[in-house]
Amino acid sequence: MNKLTVVNIGGFGHTDAVFRDLAGMQEAELIGLAPAYQGEDISKFLKLEPAVGKKVYDDYKQMLRELKPDVAIISTRLDLIPLLIMDAADAGCHVIAEKPLALDMAMLEKVCRSVERNKINLMAMLTMRSDPQFVAARQVYDSGAIGEAVLVNARKSYKWGTRPDWFGDKDKYAGTIMWVGIHAFDYINYITGLGFTKIAAMQGNFAHSERPACEDNCALVAELGNGGHATISVDYCRPEIAKTHGDDWIRIVGTKGVLEASGSKSECSVISNDKDSFRYPLPEEKDKIFTRFLLNILDGKSNSEIAQVSFMLTKVCLIAREAAQKNKVLNIE
Amino acid sequence: MNKLTVVNIGGFGHTDAVFRDLAGMQEAELIGLAPAYQGEDISKFLKLEPAVGKKVYDDYKQMLRELKPDVAIISTRLDLIPLLIMDAADAGCHVIAEKPLALDMAMLEKVCRSVERNKINLMAMLTMRSDPQFVAARQVYDSGAIGEAVLVNARKSYKWGTRPDWFGDKDKYAGTIMWVGIHAFDYINYITGLGFTKIAAMQGNFAHSERPACEDNCALVAELGNGGHATISVDYCRPEIAKTHGDDWIRIVGTKGVLEASGSKSECSVISNDKDSFRYPLPEEKDKIFTRFLLNILDGKSNSEIAQVSFMLTKVCLIAREAAQKNKVLNIE
Repeated sequence: MNKLTVVNIGGFGHTDAVFRDLAGMQEAELIGLAPAYQGEDISKFLKLEPAVGKKVYDDYKQMLRELKPDVAIISTRLDLIPLLIMDAADAGCHVIAEKPLALDMAMLEKVCRSVERNKINLMAMLTMRSDPQFVAARQVYDSGAIGEAVLVNARKSYKWGTRPDWFGDKDKYAGTIMWVGIHAFDYINYITGLGFTKIAAMQGNFAHSERPACEDNCALVAELGNGGHATISVDYCRPEIAKTHGDDWIRIVGTKGVLEASGSKSECSVISNDKDSFRYPLPEEKDKIFTRFLLNILDGKSNSEIAQVSFMLTKVCLIAREAAQKNKVLNIE
Repeated sequence: MNKLTVVNIGGFGHTDAVFRDLAGMQEAELIGLAPAYQGEDISKFLKLEPAVGKKVYDDYKQMLRELKPDVAIISTRLDLIPLLIMDAADAGCHVIAEKPLALDMAMLEKVCRSVERNKINLMAMLTMRSDPQFVAARQVYDSGAIGEAVLVNARKSYKWGTRPDWFGDKDKYAGTIMWVGIHAFDYINYITGLGFTKIAAMQGNFAHSERPACEDNCALVAELGNGGHATISVDYCRPEIAKTHGDDWIRIVGTKGVLEASGSKSECSVISNDKDSFRYPLPEEKDKIFTRFLLNILDGKSNSEIAQVSFMLTKVCLIAREAAQKNKVLNIE
């Protein structure tokens, strides 16, 4: 059996989620790591199981040349992500990259063309669609218990904690809609299958002026592909004493019922006109979305759906950010 | 002691909430009832305690002339409310009226001028600010436990049940933002003291096409007076099997903590960096907001604050509805 060879570029973001899947796989192996830019600290990833004892490079381009890996994990300062994706794609690597895939529309199109030209598989780190409460919510939705989605409310709420300096720089941090809000769009889409056709957004930095580019509160409304609507709330003001870092939540009002799924409460509760009120049991583990991506590559199966979703969500968030900046309701083609 | 004399005009809306306060008062008495328009069924109000055995008129104008009441309760088809307020004001009556106070801005200004010219006290039926969970939330907010509001999420969710025919007529039903959404704006304002400076809204009729003017889902975002933001979600799709008619809820993310108050769960829960996590006890009864309004009249005290809030909220909702109709983000002066 061919074993997929994997490298990691960068020291920021959710590489740990990919490593968790990788640690459980025989079919793929991490063979090298490198920072994305000179001076980037990658030490926290080096301590994680699949990385221990693996070769560390100073220069990721050299690593790509020498190791010729099948797959590159890219997870670093947000402005560098699109450049690294294109470098990896040109080196013939499939890519698992942090989101967003680009910080503006022109760059997103360049990334898209590079992925197509090099015929590589690409997946953004849409980690929330592996979370048990959202997997449960999708199972409930797919069962028809709440009918078709009419109105959706989604929330992302994080502790502020410690944020890198570059979170304060608009050219390096993409904005909170792009970095955090994208997850809410993702789990709305993941659970209901619906896209987004229109958007309005407001955002501000209320209590964290030491990182001026980092909005700590965002409020959004979107029209869904079926004509329903959604509200999305994003904040960095979760109290530090809270039991979990995040308070991720969704409520879906359907034609036959309502579901609520909460990460911080580890639950998915349903009121259904057809099926009464019930708690839906959560899967015991996160869904192994990165394992599936890697096995598909090995088996020659398509990963095009997740690539399409990754580009679509980045685009939606770019338009949402523009809507907030321009104070306009914008259509999403 | 002078006893305030009160009449009720109309057969639709939340007169029952006013009657509940009235039933407990020695200082005021209901002395007559009339429909607002020919053929209006007022029978359900006639069965309520303060109304039993009281004089019933066919024509409210005749009632106002004959009984010369101190106060008129006005609660009927929404398009008639502003006209009735002006009739009652011209008859020298103080007014407790259903919301919204008008269906367009020109009429709202006429109502405002009439109230000022006749020097009457006016209060809209902002019944939610009497609900125990929101009174508790205000006490928590006033205590400083969660700091200053950064991001607010509010929800109004109702069962569809049976709706009058005129809910399907845009000239008679003001729209769901006006009829239901106004409560969410009200309790945001009531708890935080903040007004609204900018708004975007989306709305639709998804599953109730038999009442085309009645949007069954609305999604709104607003900028708050302090620069924070809010999302508001309104739907008429609460499952009929749910235990309560409504699912009214607010979450306030503050600079020091988060509170959530739920009507359907009868609870107010807090996570505060200063004061840890706790459930705040709810008052046992609804706050007697109408009693206070009536006693103020009797005692010659001011009711101007609630009049101002009633007009402000109607205006905010008119602008929100316009924002939805025009697909624009609108400022609120």
